[in-house]
Amino acid sequence: MRAILFDGNLKLLGDHPEPHRRSGESLIRVKLAGICNTDLEIAKGYMGYSGVLGHEFVGIVEESDDTELCNKRVVGEINLSCGHCEFCNSGMRSHCPTRSVLGIMGHPGVMADKCTLPDSNLHKVPEGLPDEVAIFCEPLAAAFEILTQVSIEPGQTAVVLGDGKLGLLVAQVLKNADANVLLVGRSPEKLSLADGWSVRTVPADALREEAADVVVDCTGSTEGFDTALDLVRPRGTIVVKTTVADRFSINLAPLVINEITVVGSRCGPFEPALKALSDGSVRVSEMIAGIFPMEQALEAFDSASRPEALKVMIRM
Amino acid sequence: MRAILFDGNLKLLGDHPEPHRRSGESLIRVKLAGICNTDLEIAKGYMGYSGVLGHEFVGIVEESDDTELCNKRVVGEINLSCGHCEFCNSGMRSHCPTRSVLGIMGHPGVMADKCTLPDSNLHKVPEGLPDEVAIFCEPLAAAFEILTQVSIEPGQTAVVLGDGKLGLLVAQVLKNADANVLLVGRSPEKLSLADGWSVRTVPADALREEAADVVVDCTGSTEGFDTALDLVRPRGTIVVKTTVADRFSINLAPLVINEITVVGSRCGPFEPALKALSDGSVRVSEMIAGIFPMEQALEAFDSASRPEALKVMIRM
Repeated sequence: MRAILFDGNLKLLGDHPEPHRRSGESLIRVKLAGICNTDLEIAKGYMGYSGVLGHEFVGIVEESDDTELCNKRVVGEINLSCGHCEFCNSGMRSHCPTRSVLGIMGHPGVMADKCTLPDSNLHKVPEGLPDEVAIFCEPLAAAFEILTQVSIEPGQTAVVLGDGKLGLLVAQVLKNADANVLLVGRSPEKLSLADGWSVRTVPADALREEAADVVVDCTGSTEGFDTALDLVRPRGTIVVKTTVADRFSINLAPLVINEITVVGSRCGPFEPALKALSDGSVRVSEMIAGIFPMEQALEAFDSASRPEALKVMIRM
Repeated sequence: MRAILFDGNLKLLGDHPEPHRRSGESLIRVKLAGICNTDLEIAKGYMGYSGVLGHEFVGIVEESDDTELCNKRVVGEINLSCGHCEFCNSGMRSHCPTRSVLGIMGHPGVMADKCTLPDSNLHKVPEGLPDEVAIFCEPLAAAFEILTQVSIEPGQTAVVLGDGKLGLLVAQVLKNADANVLLVGRSPEKLSLADGWSVRTVPADALREEAADVVVDCTGSTEGFDTALDLVRPRGTIVVKTTVADRFSINLAPLVINEITVVGSRCGPFEPALKALSDGSVRVSEMIAGIFPMEQALEAFDSASRPEALKVMIRM
């Protein structure tokens, strides 16, 4: 089958072997794959992963022990957990210590004609929801994760740092939770997108002092955390979505003096994400930067690497 | 009056002017003052404070508009807040943005014959509670602050990093909250103190892997945070008590991947601290390293600066 592989170099192969479906897994024919910043990091060699890339997808189940799933259009959660450890048994499957992660760690990804995932990871896509909207389910779920971790009261001030894909999703999720959202970014085009969704925005260089109840760092940069510490009120909360591989220097004294809470936040629940995509309460279609055919997958990666790029997809 | 002053140098003065009691404040005759690590930091010039040092005390109210307080033995909360801002009105007086802090910022401290504090900051010391026990109220309140910020379930594993004064208090408070406490330190003497209180201990160099629900950093060093990140389980909590003035380098990626919560923690409630000192459920008398007369205050500072020192006090 065709597959996009990283083995030190990024390659489009035409004859990669199909994945083996294990018991409890579905074999899925991939229709559409999204390029995430994590894929770009992997393609730069930062994450130590070698194999088929990709974890954002929409596909059709071709084979499954679960007949309910066969021939259904699905999206899928990316953590493959053991199902019987302490974490799995206490509702923390995404933290299973022996987990593998789709296209990121120990399990081949979705940028290929076929992929496999446990049946329990799959969610049927509602009819009428286009593939290029449904594919935002995984990153949007990561935005919804914030609501499972932090109690957002109506009217609370929430500053979102970073106007990239994740920042634009987080801003909408928090706005729909009735927070008073301010999106901070460097791209006039991306900020004007958010303006169109009635999200308050400000260019990073015009940002003034805030006393925000919540600050979400979606900058993907090492400067995000310091900015967040400057903007959050005493006893406020900083949510960190940025995973920066580098060590960087911080001063924790303000965190203690102002009794700040910092919450690391990763993958989230698919149900509210699918619902928000279905009812249109989170807008994503303006975030599509391009859909490339599989033959142009390497060009798709180049396009996704431009700083101004939003979501780039690959159609199989 | 006599006073211990820092103005770039640490000095014992014999003729310092008495503080002026403002309306709503009590004038207090100090009986006993404690030396805290913050005082040692100030005396090294790290905090930019100039004035009479000290914030841990037991004293007798000499003058007050509140007749209930007159001639009573008191301890006192250290934050002097405005009483009418948004923070003061929402129960966050210790975060009042225009606050001063006793002996630390903008208000003369307690290492003197007399000091002043707002009546509302004072707590009467129960009869029969010795001065040299009651004086632990302020740091013990800071340990109790953790229970107001983090929900500790019985049986949860709580690792306390650092066997200094604060670590020894925090370990006892968490043990009394039915946590399964492990105290990590470098001093055989201090660890054996905690052993005597039935707190589990381990020398830092013999520490093995843990998957702690809660890790409290009381190390006072920049290495504490990294160690805490290594020891906390996914979705666990790190409480930071250490205020290190330096910037230091950290890697936030594990915080995001493991969805850790980090909570900065400072001053706390006096009531539970006074109660625990009164009923003996927190042991402090073994932590007294020495009580110096005021004439030997500079020697007291030298004694408190030894790495192995526990609580050093100055009797007026």
